[in-house]
Amino acid sequence: MFVNHKRILIEFGDCDPAEIVFFANYFRWFDDCTTALFAAAGLSIRKLFPSYGIVGIPIVEASARFLSPSTYGDELEVESSVTEWRKSSFVITHKFFREGDLMLEGRETRVWAAAHPTESNRLKALPLPKEVIEKLSKNGKARGPKAISRSVRSGR
Amino acid sequence: MFVNHKRILIEFGDCDPAEIVFFANYFRWFDDCTTALFAAAGLSIRKLFPSYGIVGIPIVEASARFLSPSTYGDELEVESSVTEWRKSSFVITHKFFREGDLMLEGRETRVWAAAHPTESNRLKALPLPKEVIEKLSKNGKARGPKAISRSVRSGR
Amino acid sequence: MFVNHKRILIEFGDCDPAEIVFFANYFRWFDDCTTALFAAAGLSIRKLFPSYGIVGIPIVEASARFLSPSTYGDELEVESSVTEWRKSSFVITHKFFREGDLMLEGRETRVWAAAHPTESNRLKALPLPKEVIEKLSKNGKARGPKAISRSVRSGR
Amino acid sequence: MFVNHKRILIEFGDCDPAEIVFFANYFRWFDDCTTALFAAAGLSIRKLFPSYGIVGIPIVEASARFLSPSTYGDELEVESSVTEWRKSSFVITHKFFREGDLMLEGRETRVWAAAHPTESNRLKALPLPKEVIEKLSKNGKARGPKAISRSVRSGR
Repeated sequence: MFVNHKRILIEFGDCDPAEIVFFANYFRWFDDCTTALFAAAGLSIRKLFPSYGIVGIPIVEASARFLSPSTYGDELEVESSVTEWRKSSFVITHKFFREGDLMLEGRETRVWAAAHPTESNRLKALPLPKEVIEKLSKNGKARGPKAISRSVRSGR
Repeated sequence: MFVNHKRILIEFGDCDPAEIVFFANYFRWFDDCTTALFAAAGLSIRKLFPSYGIVGIPIVEASARFLSPSTYGDELEVESSVTEWRKSSFVITHKFFREGDLMLEGRETRVWAAAHPTESNRLKALPLPKEVIEKLSKNGKARGPKAISRSVRSGR
Repeated sequence: MFVNHKRILIEFGDCDPAEIVFFANYFRWFDDCTTALFAAAGLSIRKLFPSYGIVGIPIVEASARFLSPSTYGDELEVESSVTEWRKSSFVITHKFFREGDLMLEGRETRVWAAAHPTESNRLKALPLPKEVIEKLSKNGKARGPKAISRSVRSGR
Repeated sequence: MFVNHKRILIEFGDCDPAEIVFFANYFRWFDDCTTALFAAAGLSIRKLFPSYGIVGIPIVEASARFLSPSTYGDELEVESSVTEWRKSSFVITHKFFREGDLMLEGRETRVWAAAHPTESNRLKALPLPKEVIEKLSKNGKARGPKAISRSVRSGR
């Protein structure tokens, strides 16, 4: 399994009057972490989509379990990986840690989607390319030390 | 079941480069719709929390199934209600419609939470007051015609 | 001068740990209010841009003076109008009121912009169409009673 | 002048249907950069406010000039410093660079504010502590190499 780690610094503006992260922001970070996971695997979303003839990897399901709140000044480390491959969709799991403690866990189900051939405003799910699955499975390369996020290969 | 309806106009800034709503915004609207549901039941969150001695109704789980995308200029109608009561937590379901079509469905599990008596930075779940359950069940009063959101009592 | 009024309900998630609106959200609302101003003048941004051959009305300058803070549950009324016309740009002024009191004042300078004819990733400012200026000056029509925002013609 | 540099990676969700950063996000980053500037000077906002008896450093004016747009995948480097000291307020200037090119420039005017002694819901501006001015002027210490943002002393 190819795992990427991304560090997130919680900012004042991410928090609400309860002085904890406003929960919708975690879903924003799920997206950022998925982008980082793809980038770490050599799949930049900016170049990826046109080069594979897709319009994106839209989300069809998302969920999160919030175990402990975080506040501004906290630094979280997010561990992201594809945990399930289906024919034309896949599940990404994100685990947020603060100093080693699991704070929350989230899942996104995304589709490999092209424009619909005959109907505008609709999408058509395509089979996932073998190369993409491989890069996000065990063949991915870790990014160098200058990277904002870092990735590791893991046997888990 | 006490049901509230809230109208949401999708703005340009709510959408991403795929020209559809950036999905994290739906979770922001879940929170807005829960506030509106409580307000429609006569439970203003601004006054509610101090008057019941709680610090809030933090989310412990959230999920959404995205059926169809929306874009800026679209007006959505959200139907919100408490669909499950537990001892000190409850589940709110939000259904987003566009011109009668269900676009997405979401669920939040929230806790009735006070400050922890001995440990700061922790919360303590309290039993839900009977009055709150009643107001959000069948005794809630619909808001007047000037309200931004409107509520209806429903037998569903 | 064509003036539009839009009502904004401040939500919990719009506020920060100081229990007031996180200031960046006001700029988000500036954009929403500009969209509403254009819509009230019969210029839907969703249809406007393609029909005039422009890619948008990007912002080149924005500013705000914050006089008094607002918090969740507050309802603000925003008064928006074009207060200056230049050759290919214009200034929109937004005034936010709470129960008649001016809470903040903001300005956006926007450009009427098409894709650059020879360089991708660049824009080219075009002269503002006379019709657009007229609609946003005195010829604009107020929207009907079902509108979320309402507009009035004003001699100010 | 004490200058801090903070790196910002533009994410997909930061961008709008025009495929550029939705401008309100820059104001969010102004706040993040001010936090980083203070932290780099040894003034953590989380500890600072209680220890100086203030409730925060609310913004009374903000402005930005947008010179060039950025999109997702871009990395910006923000240069932040206090460029003007007044009795109880100060001006912070943020310059956003992409590969050496200035993309935008922003200014925030903030107040050193305590709770009002007699009126709740109001703030009272206090004179800026000499120590805070000194730390944010020339006596600030650069943060170590592990820091997410880095700061340098500058004679400019």
